[in-house]
Amino acid sequence: MSAHFNQATVIGVGLIGGSIAGVIKARGIAQTVVGVGRNKDNLEVAVRLGLIDRYSQDAKKGVIGSDLVVLCCPVGSFEQVAREIKPYLKDQAVVTDAGSVKGRLVEILEEIFYLKARYVPAHPIAGGERSGAEAADLKLFQGARCILTPTRHTDIQALEAVSDLWEAAGAKVERMDPFDHDRVFGMVSHLPHVAAYAMVGALTKMDGGEDAISYAAGGFKDFTRIAGSHPGMWRDICLLNAGNIKAALDVYIKSLEALRGLIEAGDGDALQAEFEKAKTIRQKIK
Amino acid sequence: MSAHFNQATVIGVGLIGGSIAGVIKARGIAQTVVGVGRNKDNLEVAVRLGLIDRYSQDAKKGVIGSDLVVLCCPVGSFEQVAREIKPYLKDQAVVTDAGSVKGRLVEILEEIFYLKARYVPAHPIAGGERSGAEAADLKLFQGARCILTPTRHTDIQALEAVSDLWEAAGAKVERMDPFDHDRVFGMVSHLPHVAAYAMVGALTKMDGGEDAISYAAGGFKDFTRIAGSHPGMWRDICLLNAGNIKAALDVYIKSLEALRGLIEAGDGDALQAEFEKAKTIRQKIK
Repeated sequence: MSAHFNQATVIGVGLIGGSIAGVIKARGIAQTVVGVGRNKDNLEVAVRLGLIDRYSQDAKKGVIGSDLVVLCCPVGSFEQVAREIKPYLKDQAVVTDAGSVKGRLVEILEEIFYLKARYVPAHPIAGGERSGAEAADLKLFQGARCILTPTRHTDIQALEAVSDLWEAAGAKVERMDPFDHDRVFGMVSHLPHVAAYAMVGALTKMDGGEDAISYAAGGFKDFTRIAGSHPGMWRDICLLNAGNIKAALDVYIKSLEALRGLIEAGDGDALQAEFEKAKTIRQKIK
Repeated sequence: MSAHFNQATVIGVGLIGGSIAGVIKARGIAQTVVGVGRNKDNLEVAVRLGLIDRYSQDAKKGVIGSDLVVLCCPVGSFEQVAREIKPYLKDQAVVTDAGSVKGRLVEILEEIFYLKARYVPAHPIAGGERSGAEAADLKLFQGARCILTPTRHTDIQALEAVSDLWEAAGAKVERMDPFDHDRVFGMVSHLPHVAAYAMVGALTKMDGGEDAISYAAGGFKDFTRIAGSHPGMWRDICLLNAGNIKAALDVYIKSLEALRGLIEAGDGDALQAEFEKAKTIRQKIK
């Protein structure tokens, strides 16, 4: 661990925020860890669990004196929170985040923090069904990927410090262009989530659909597990990565229509060929 | 166990056929169990594992003398196999199956077996990633649902015997109308499978899609696990339940287009409301 901070502030002490706060404390990455959140009970839990030393319900106050700030609040609030905390940040503080969207949002945050703080965009690929500080798990990032999306404006020492942070959490750190990141995750993460929500929604519109749910063994259940995810988070992601998600949806809808056409035509050979191809590709995923 | 058979023939000794053959033998439901299949090595494995007593590679010969015949071959071959074995069946033999499609197929099979054998349509909701007799598991049906779809033509004693068979295998036996069955499974099983195949297929059509697969954590991976299923089986299912699958696809595509429209309009509130609704419904599934 090359970096060492006097004080770190984690904004949003949920599953991700609570877990990274706990890692920062447990590994001595900062001497003091401050939690920021709206829910006082949750912040008290975080103190009791030893994830943070103290807390504030006001982000502005919470960041004062910190040389590391980690945004773990909803990605849809990043811009507003960034504008709000900027005047209170220590000069040259390292600011990073755990948001699922990068791309244009990185440009916006870079502009906000320009000449004030050193922003390093990050996306740890981790999560779970549970939420709140109670769900925090210091092993959450063990073996997970964490994608840093630096730009030509990113401070190299801050980048190293954030890289070290996620490595200390056990993550495998990678780098990617912020716009490539959104294209890739639009395809492999955002599209499947929207598709899962759409499938559950579709079922409610089919005759007898809701009763049919009780027969949802393997197929439907697996397919739609992710529709149990946090609606507010997915709302934010859809709005912030709209372009890539729309493009992915268009290709997906075309694929569905193509299979529908083969079913209508009774073209068994072509259907089987499509299914074989998909199976082969799917088997490449560990 | 009220039913007792002298000889049972299981046509298709894969995961499902091998498992039910093993149950029939282990529970003494029939004195002798004959396996029918094309692959001699697989049939030898079934004998070695004690799932069957002997085998034939010819269905016609395999059914001779049996008072119970279980069709576990691909559902797309049922009609042809039924026509082929009919002249060789013992009079009033009980014929049942383990096919994922019912509806019109039940009518066809009833017509073929009319006045010759007593056909009882069944669909055990079980399966797995592995295939072949080697994968057979006498506990496969433990706690699983098995749906019988009798009609007004179904012989009541044969129905009881088949119900007893699946109960002996540990399944929870239910009854459903054959056409309702196809509508329900078109929604909760066939649609998600087609959707998963389409999603993997879509990825290959997106710019950089195949490279993106390596980032397919949670979302995509869960969503498309079922795209690893047997392509030939799904080809058959798509052809035999085309009407219901097309109808379900239409509603699903409309749902996707509706979400796409909300993303395009940047309507966060409506997106969140849709996601909340889907989450609530999804949570009803155990």
